Amino acid sequence: MERYRVKPGEKVNLDRVDAADTSAWKGDKDSAKERFLELRARLVELQEVLYAQQRHQVLVVFQAMDTGGKDGTIRAVFEGVNPQGVKVASFKAPTPLELAHDYLWRVHPHTPGKGEISVFNRSHYEDVLVVRVHDLAPEERWQRRYEHINQFERMLADEGTTILKFYLHIDRDEQKERLLERLDMPEKRWKFSPGDLDERKLWPKYMEAFEEMLERTSTSYAPWYVIPANRNWMRNLAVMTILVDCLEKLDMKYPAALPEEEITANRKRLMSESE
Amino acid sequence: MERYRVKPGEKVNLDRVDAADTSAWKGDKDSAKERFLELRARLVELQEVLYAQQRHQVLVVFQAMDTGGKDGTIRAVFEGVNPQGVKVASFKAPTPLELAHDYLWRVHPHTPGKGEISVFNRSHYEDVLVVRVHDLAPEERWQRRYEHINQFERMLADEGTTILKFYLHIDRDEQKERLLERLDMPEKRWKFSPGDLDERKLWPKYMEAFEEMLERTSTSYAPWYVIPANRNWMRNLAVMTILVDCLEKLDMKYPAALPEEEITANRKRLMSESE
Repeated sequence: MERYRVKPGEKVNLDRVDAADTSAWKGDKDSAKERFLELRARLVELQEVLYAQQRHQVLVVFQAMDTGGKDGTIRAVFEGVNPQGVKVASFKAPTPLELAHDYLWRVHPHTPGKGEISVFNRSHYEDVLVVRVHDLAPEERWQRRYEHINQFERMLADEGTTILKFYLHIDRDEQKERLLERLDMPEKRWKFSPGDLDERKLWPKYMEAFEEMLERTSTSYAPWYVIPANRNWMRNLAVMTILVDCLEKLDMKYPAALPEEEITANRKRLMSESE
Repeated sequence: MERYRVKPGEKVNLDRVDAADTSAWKGDKDSAKERFLELRARLVELQEVLYAQQRHQVLVVFQAMDTGGKDGTIRAVFEGVNPQGVKVASFKAPTPLELAHDYLWRVHPHTPGKGEISVFNRSHYEDVLVVRVHDLAPEERWQRRYEHINQFERMLADEGTTILKFYLHIDRDEQKERLLERLDMPEKRWKFSPGDLDERKLWPKYMEAFEEMLERTSTSYAPWYVIPANRNWMRNLAVMTILVDCLEKLDMKYPAALPEEEITANRKRLMSESE
């Protein structure tokens, strides 16, 4: 899965990344789904140890174009994991109160605590994406943010947070298909907003913004992964594989139990209870 | 499921509530599990509409003695529901910062927003339970809290929150079994703390505290349900049935889509795009 990882400082040309690529999986779609479920079962186990051990914190960030599949990925990957240990934070257009503060202010409270996994559906990266594309701040302002973000994430990492960042890459044709689907399927129509088509016009500007984001904020301690996301099954499998792999490397253990003699003493105490 | 509901002002004698009762389900355990899964599939659908409609807020509170099954119930009921729409808040022993404020201060930020389900694993009710049993505040102080809590929950309800509260009722023998299990099973031992046995000694005091809580804070807008919880399958099925039933009654709908002519116009605009 290293193929998806952006090396620090690497320039990514998203036009040349095949969003429909499935070559990372040698089998067919069904076998991929099977593998996905196996990995999810493993994720469930790993999350349990994470939660029990109360030692590591995990932050998973998702960014993508509209219809890129952030919601669907979060659902597929984390459904079935103990809901007590996973917190999803969705960052929408900032409120006046949020805008009255720096752009990391609304994000910080949602970073994970010991034993927790936090999932960001959009994130502080919007402040170098939508803000840049729509000129919501002057360039000299958002240009400084890459460095702020790197330093913020370095601090989180130094203090024990494992960070994974996924850019889900669909191409422009795929977005068209997905928007048409929203229009055509009655149960999906509520998701469609006419503004989606105006955003779509800005595709090249967004790609430019994503490319600079990837180049400047993929670090050893908080790497970006560019996931081909035209095919949902490939996308889900890739994200799951990278996540499980990363958790395996933490080499977590259940916390040590009481010494054997204390276990025995407590068992005796319970058994001899006079009620 | 109305049998489990505590009527406003009703006195509950927990000694007389059979924690092993399964008479609410006429079939066997396997058929109960089947029914549970059917209801969970329905919960998944209902949560989707709730999330889409952004109109209702749902708060689900769990209280129980140690080993009563709060964690297990939350897991069984909400696993598989879109993790984006369900937020679990676990209230542990308060921190110094939390203690420096009123007891509702730490709870309020976790109440659900529009379209959300918040699940409380323990809650503000600890402030009339553990606080009372351990004399952490004088009686004149915690006695006033029943009324505060009712008023707080009334405000939440008036502002659109649907509230369900579950007391999971195990008996003292069942707790003994469960504590022994924690001691006997290596993968459960980390959950055991010697303090658990000291808490257990206070069983009668806790029952008294739960009984007064049930009597004084079960309201029409925020009812308590006393769930027999010795049998996990019965407990899960009862909680799930009450929750699904309550959500059905909200009579939720997907938000209205765009008018048909706008759909057509947008479809045309997408199809005729020159890229």
